[in-house]
Amino acid sequence: MPLMSKRVALLIQYLGTGYCGWQKQPNGISIQQTIEEAIAKHAGHAVTLHGAGRTDTGVHASAQVAHFNTTSPIPCDRWSKILNASLPPSISILQSVQVADTWHAQFSAIWRRYRYVIYTGREPNVFWRQFTWHYYYAPLDVDLMRQALLPMVGEQDLSALQRAGSKRRHARLTVQEVRCWREEDLLMVEVQASGFLYGMMRLLMGLLVQVGRSQISLAQFADIWQNRRRDLVKYAAPPQGLCLIGVGYPDNPFTVRSRSFWG
Amino acid sequence: MPLMSKRVALLIQYLGTGYCGWQKQPNGISIQQTIEEAIAKHAGHAVTLHGAGRTDTGVHASAQVAHFNTTSPIPCDRWSKILNASLPPSISILQSVQVADTWHAQFSAIWRRYRYVIYTGREPNVFWRQFTWHYYYAPLDVDLMRQALLPMVGEQDLSALQRAGSKRRHARLTVQEVRCWREEDLLMVEVQASGFLYGMMRLLMGLLVQVGRSQISLAQFADIWQNRRRDLVKYAAPPQGLCLIGVGYPDNPFTVRSRSFWG
Repeated sequence: MPLMSKRVALLIQYLGTGYCGWQKQPNGISIQQTIEEAIAKHAGHAVTLHGAGRTDTGVHASAQVAHFNTTSPIPCDRWSKILNASLPPSISILQSVQVADTWHAQFSAIWRRYRYVIYTGREPNVFWRQFTWHYYYAPLDVDLMRQALLPMVGEQDLSALQRAGSKRRHARLTVQEVRCWREEDLLMVEVQASGFLYGMMRLLMGLLVQVGRSQISLAQFADIWQNRRRDLVKYAAPPQGLCLIGVGYPDNPFTVRSRSFWG
Repeated sequence: MPLMSKRVALLIQYLGTGYCGWQKQPNGISIQQTIEEAIAKHAGHAVTLHGAGRTDTGVHASAQVAHFNTTSPIPCDRWSKILNASLPPSISILQSVQVADTWHAQFSAIWRRYRYVIYTGREPNVFWRQFTWHYYYAPLDVDLMRQALLPMVGEQDLSALQRAGSKRRHARLTVQEVRCWREEDLLMVEVQASGFLYGMMRLLMGLLVQVGRSQISLAQFADIWQNRRRDLVKYAAPPQGLCLIGVGYPDNPFTVRSRSFWG
């Protein structure tokens, strides 16, 4: 009897601190490689782990999704517990489920959702430090930032917000929802889109902060992204404020919900 | 002209991980000593930092209060920024203010408030890990736990919940408020009291979890604390779930509010 191959989907949390990001790199330890090695140890064969989205160095995820194929007899729903016993404390598998061989963590996904959090208090906050951008150089007008964001909803070419080094052939994507609000000394920005460009959220946040402190106007902000003025996008917000908080599928294979500080 | 001595009050946050607690110890690095040394460096003289409450090894604080006396000409409201530049990232001074020479961080305080958080999800959560007790061995009935807690409000002798090694002469205190509730897979317990005994919150949580999983009845729980059955209190909950979230004064000298994950 030939070995049956099964496809297993994982719901994954990680603290990006200390990793070179999701994707395998020649230099540095990636989340992808760390989990692949843990799987291989138990599966008895090498695996490729396909992630729904690539997070940069230092970026966190409360709900990354990935899948792999295996001929191991381990029941699919057991993988979470088995892997967590091998993984470092900064990575956790919240659930593992069997999916159809046609289901793909990246290609079946219809949206990704990121949250960026800015901490605006005067003095450092030891709790938020690892998860926010401490921005206290000037007050930020959250209403201006929201007004800048709202027109981005829709099908866009966001070449202006793509870092050099991307392998994507085009920069078109659909922004499905944007949110921008303040909770006391925290300022939150959430973007849900069909896909994200390399470095997009951090470049967007760098610009939005310039809008929030009136260094650039709403018209200038619109001109930059609508007219693909990549040359005018100078600052990337630091990675620790960013978190991949969800990936959407027409048929969500998971029954648990991943929670973090960000709901 | 003689040097004028001023009294400075500090609003302090810290992650207890890696420290031997608030209080100076012959072995291990304490929060108190770390801040005292930072103050001395800038004041040019040794200082004693009086804290409102002593937190155990590994216990966090989002709003500890302390005071010291200094003859330094540094303006009182400048100390927060100056100290934060010297302190490690796990300690932050949120505000520094001048107080009267009769004001005392410990003796002027009329209450302390602690929160304990239990994470009840099946798999580890990388975000909550450093700030919760991961308890998934059995379901916990939050209503039973609340029923156990409520009768503790009032003036009590809580000798049953005092760890050996305390220097207190008695175990009487007033429990002012208790709260116990669930937010999805987090279970929160808050206690506000005139004072707390050595190890009290962690011993209380150890017992409450036994109530929540019906290992001991409400009657047994009441018997233990009402009749000072210290011999029946066997488990202390781990320190990382505990956080000192507030200290109350008749005249709160601070104008900023310290925030953490716990509001």
